[in-house]
Amino acid sequence: MSEQTHGDVTVDRVELAEELAGAGLTGTGSTASPDAAEYALRLGDDALVLAQRLGMWITRAPELEEDVALGNIGLDLIGHARSLLHYAGTATGRTEDDLAYWRDEPEWRNAWLFEQPNGDFAHTIARQLVASAYLFELYGDLADSTDPTLAAIAAKAVKEVDYHRDHAVQWTLRLAGGTDESRRRMIVAIADTWPYVDELFEDDELVERLEASGVAVRPSSLRERFDAAIDAVFDEARLERPTGRTAFIAAGRGRHGGHTEHLGPLLAEMQVLARQHPGASW
Amino acid sequence: MSEQTHGDVTVDRVELAEELAGAGLTGTGSTASPDAAEYALRLGDDALVLAQRLGMWITRAPELEEDVALGNIGLDLIGHARSLLHYAGTATGRTEDDLAYWRDEPEWRNAWLFEQPNGDFAHTIARQLVASAYLFELYGDLADSTDPTLAAIAAKAVKEVDYHRDHAVQWTLRLAGGTDESRRRMIVAIADTWPYVDELFEDDELVERLEASGVAVRPSSLRERFDAAIDAVFDEARLERPTGRTAFIAAGRGRHGGHTEHLGPLLAEMQVLARQHPGASW
Repeated sequence: MSEQTHGDVTVDRVELAEELAGAGLTGTGSTASPDAAEYALRLGDDALVLAQRLGMWITRAPELEEDVALGNIGLDLIGHARSLLHYAGTATGRTEDDLAYWRDEPEWRNAWLFEQPNGDFAHTIARQLVASAYLFELYGDLADSTDPTLAAIAAKAVKEVDYHRDHAVQWTLRLAGGTDESRRRMIVAIADTWPYVDELFEDDELVERLEASGVAVRPSSLRERFDAAIDAVFDEARLERPTGRTAFIAAGRGRHGGHTEHLGPLLAEMQVLARQHPGASW
Repeated sequence: MSEQTHGDVTVDRVELAEELAGAGLTGTGSTASPDAAEYALRLGDDALVLAQRLGMWITRAPELEEDVALGNIGLDLIGHARSLLHYAGTATGRTEDDLAYWRDEPEWRNAWLFEQPNGDFAHTIARQLVASAYLFELYGDLADSTDPTLAAIAAKAVKEVDYHRDHAVQWTLRLAGGTDESRRRMIVAIADTWPYVDELFEDDELVERLEASGVAVRPSSLRERFDAAIDAVFDEARLERPTGRTAFIAAGRGRHGGHTEHLGPLLAEMQVLARQHPGASW
């Protein structure tokens, strides 16, 4: 394994260094506009929250091979989150660690899908299927952004998300076509997950402003391709795509800081250590 | 990201495939002798149990960069465990998943160090320091084993453990030389960890038999180099190496199935999902 000295602490590998360099984290030094920063925060929060969920599977999946797969996917997502949060922080002089550890729940901008609990393995796979199919279309388009930092991050991320999507598709087919029990669980998981799909494709004023200048991708523009990709999988798995079920919470949408009851405990676990030592050099 | 189709499920990347091929998992098809299998089980259990502990740090470390580092170390260790458990299983026709998910506590052969809880971040680093310094010397010597499978696994693992050791050393220096609080925590962590050091270097009849034919490394032969490596770090960090403290439990040594109270809950978490679906294809 290779390594990189970052400051006085050796913690990285070549692959991470390449990822960050490729994503512009240590590169151009561009400063995000306030709008672009808010957009990057949304994408970064999606990735970081999902990574937190996936980390729990290490040594808890049904196969050792799968521990490694879900662990690697989680680490990919942390990589995306770091690049995106770093860029978001340039608008206000905050680091990615500031943004990860020092924002309270109403300041988080992830969609609800990503904060939903792991459930059983089928629920994790259903969430992965939706997340990766959405992110694949999103990053594919965002790679053509007029914002060079976002374009570079997306171009790197889409290659990894392509693998994540393939992983989720293969597991969906395997569970749906496995035992009666695994198929039953997959069907339940899809039903439980689908209410969180619609939020991913909602437009708002921020993305409309950013899309006008070619910076952002309009979420609604991805829906048709997402549905087609899902339908192809479900056809093969003899599953039906649920319709007409959209989650609603009084607190408002995730992109504006309204969250389900699952985000609070997740943030508590994520942030406790950093907050115990505010300003400590470690 | 690259991928590999393994059976009908795409779950791997090129790096994993290379690791497994390099370690002989998909290679020679050698069958382990009963003694070599028991020895491989010890090493594999050390790696898997430690990986389970490290996975908990994903998104919980004090920095995002550190999440990635500890996550990668955990995944490296799962790779070592898979290769070692695969080889151990060849003696009795069991798979690495059988060995990971279907053995009860008295059948586990890891040393106590690896099952100790994460504690605070300093405790995790102290455990990493001891584990990686021990494993680095062990795998370095085992790469010359007369057993070609063990030699290949060790030759691959020592390169990764070299990075793990460097990571732990740098964090030890950083915590010991950081704030008063971080130094205090590092000192406590070292004191709490050291009682588990002696067990790592205990010989028994199995390793004596295997060492006579050049298959295994005699643990006691590593102690001097381990102490020298630790002393070099502690000198730089102005820390003292504890002496004369050895953990003892009535249940007997880890290599013979006696474990501290911490292994049971760890195994419960690791094994619950696989055991819920005995024999299921997923």
